[in-house]
Amino acid sequence: MNPKRITGVLSPVVTPFKPDLAPDADKLVRQCRWLLSQNVGLAVFGTNSEANSLSTQEKIELLDRLIAAGVEKLGCGGVLMLPPFYYKGVSDDGLFRNFAEIVERVGDRGLRMYLYHIPPVSNVPITLTLVERLLKAYPGTIAGAKDSGGDWSNTKAMLDRFATSGFDVFPGAETFLLAGMRHGGAGCISATANTNPAAIARLYDSWRDADADAQQKRLDDIRGTFARYPMIPALKAAIAHWSGTPEWATVRPPLVALTREQAASLVSDLKARNFDMPGLRG
Amino acid sequence: MNPKRITGVLSPVVTPFKPDLAPDADKLVRQCRWLLSQNVGLAVFGTNSEANSLSTQEKIELLDRLIAAGVEKLGCGGVLMLPPFYYKGVSDDGLFRNFAEIVERVGDRGLRMYLYHIPPVSNVPITLTLVERLLKAYPGTIAGAKDSGGDWSNTKAMLDRFATSGFDVFPGAETFLLAGMRHGGAGCISATANTNPAAIARLYDSWRDADADAQQKRLDDIRGTFARYPMIPALKAAIAHWSGTPEWATVRPPLVALTREQAASLVSDLKARNFDMPGLRG
Repeated sequence: MNPKRITGVLSPVVTPFKPDLAPDADKLVRQCRWLLSQNVGLAVFGTNSEANSLSTQEKIELLDRLIAAGVEKLGCGGVLMLPPFYYKGVSDDGLFRNFAEIVERVGDRGLRMYLYHIPPVSNVPITLTLVERLLKAYPGTIAGAKDSGGDWSNTKAMLDRFATSGFDVFPGAETFLLAGMRHGGAGCISATANTNPAAIARLYDSWRDADADAQQKRLDDIRGTFARYPMIPALKAAIAHWSGTPEWATVRPPLVALTREQAASLVSDLKARNFDMPGLRG
Repeated sequence: MNPKRITGVLSPVVTPFKPDLAPDADKLVRQCRWLLSQNVGLAVFGTNSEANSLSTQEKIELLDRLIAAGVEKLGCGGVLMLPPFYYKGVSDDGLFRNFAEIVERVGDRGLRMYLYHIPPVSNVPITLTLVERLLKAYPGTIAGAKDSGGDWSNTKAMLDRFATSGFDVFPGAETFLLAGMRHGGAGCISATANTNPAAIARLYDSWRDADADAQQKRLDDIRGTFARYPMIPALKAAIAHWSGTPEWATVRPPLVALTREQAASLVSDLKARNFDMPGLRG
């Protein structure tokens, strides 16, 4: 085992925008600091970060600001990599060649690549056969996967086949955090780790405890409340409310912010569940 | 009517790559010259150009080379624009806001934007309601659409509702070229215009002639022959064969070139149909 491997609960950090839609680096630094204080790691520029609506230059500048603020050290523990997702119905041969070219051209033995299986969004799956081929060709470099397929049988098959080969599997939601840990999972990377980080991190730390199933149930209830709305706008609406900064609700097109009524309803439903984001304000 | 509007048959020009996968600008210039000699227009950096596997910098450099070679004049007649296609299930409000922000931020009255409806690939459709809203907000700028949905009823609905409002509809394949012209279409933008340009352009020029249906049938037969294989690799295999330059078969991942057997079978089936690419060699 490489002691530097990433484990635990990571938040695909939502990206704050100014009213003119420019990224707001100050708010991002503040949010990352709060997330770290809640015991979750940072997976910046993920799906929930609206990273596919950011330019490469914007991502470089935001990363520079995180480094300057001491939130991220230069370099990163790993890279979560989508398959190329425009062309559909592509073969595993083509996908293998895609990841292989990237590994070869990066040419850095320090590269830790996590394969991103998110068929509801990418429509291009990372099959178990593809994982097997890549692991064989690039052991050590192919470090794991995030499985956001929402299908436990696939996550379990990935864990059963690869978890003992130094391949770290992160379910793409806390929904499967406990089940994952019980089958050799490495943690989870979850949208709602943006808003409910401490509780998710607590289950990761205490999944062997007697109340683990009760903890999981409570996490599912909170997540389910967010999931009644489009996820990214809902996360931002909650942060806007609990931080007291309405601009946090801003999303880039093609996303649309929750309406005032939706946001009020979300906050009310969360409060009814004694949900809170302690320490976020100020 | 703006006399500068684009009409006719356009080829989404396939992009040649060197063995190391770098774009081959010389071959692209030669291919564009040949296409122009066959009476089709150039739609560079489309789906069939593997444009979604090219970087912005690569596209800028290739365009500079086309301009330097006198193939493209500086500036372009129009821009074919995909919807943002990572996030799925987005609303028409979000898509409207996406295109509106682009129009406003480009801020050039010379912009001619063609909306790209290609749900089999993008999974994000351009609905008739969205076209209507955009046309109303930006008349003149919203110049038309390419409909690659493969559903004639949608193409016809688009033509019926918007063709008389200065909105030019291009079916995304010659399959609907004749039907489109009979309902006020502007031509077509088609993958197979890369390999069968003269015959497609002839139908565009003579669609009122008595043999138009026979011409359409012959075009469908040739296209159907290509469509038995993955389209982009098949187009490149045909160009490789008829130009006598095997490197033309190279595709970027995640695509995979036809096998030797597939390529031989494609060429043989095309020859059996007296298909040729005159003037391509040398």
